Amino acid sequence: MIARHILDVKESTDLEDAQGVSKRVLIGKNEGAPTFYMRHFHISPHGFSPLHSHPWEHEVYIISGKGSILVGDEEAELKEGVAVFIPPNTPHQIKAGEDDIELLCCIPAIEEA
Amino acid sequence: MIARHILDVKESTDLEDAQGVSKRVLIGKNEGAPTFYMRHFHISPHGFSPLHSHPWEHEVYIISGKGSILVGDEEAELKEGVAVFIPPNTPHQIKAGEDDIELLCCIPAIEEA
Repeated sequence: MIARHILDVKESTDLEDAQGVSKRVLIGKNEGAPTFYMRHFHISPHGFSPLHSHPWEHEVYIISGKGSILVGDEEAELKEGVAVFIPPNTPHQIKAGEDDIELLCCIPAIEEA
Repeated sequence: MIARHILDVKESTDLEDAQGVSKRVLIGKNEGAPTFYMRHFHISPHGFSPLHSHPWEHEVYIISGKGSILVGDEEAELKEGVAVFIPPNTPHQIKAGEDDIELLCCIPAIEEA
């Protein structure tokens, strides 16, 4: 078993084309995860993730805060308790509003994490 | 995109060998998830998940509450912000303490969800 608190996990803040985003890989390749990875993101007020697209899906859960998400040409409100499935190959971006946002974003096991 | 609040997702409370547990499949087979599924669990005070083992891993994140987890012969404290990797084929059980626990538990895409 690996059990650890988010604050004991190294934080990255140098995400390309993002603003006010910090990322922690809670369970990834280094933890021996065979199928998928769990990452934690914090987005500061008015911050945003990159608007990008890739061949793998995302599964997102909003832990706290408020904001919005754009997926293709659809937009949805984000708040605590909302889960989002982002299909593969679909442009997407998460934006924080007046509040910061704390979320989990899970991805299939790929080389990046 | 599929975006929905946990309270808009059907709840199951008939989990075998569990006590005080409710389960919601936030993103599963029905949502078209190709690789892994995201489920939300609520465990009432002094409730517990089944002590069981299976050939797939779990990735767990504690949203709120306090309790403990047993994985093999190891035990760890659970509280808000703790992530747990449960390897395949390892007996495991989550127990709530005085508080209830709210958590996410992700699994590879299998037939059950």
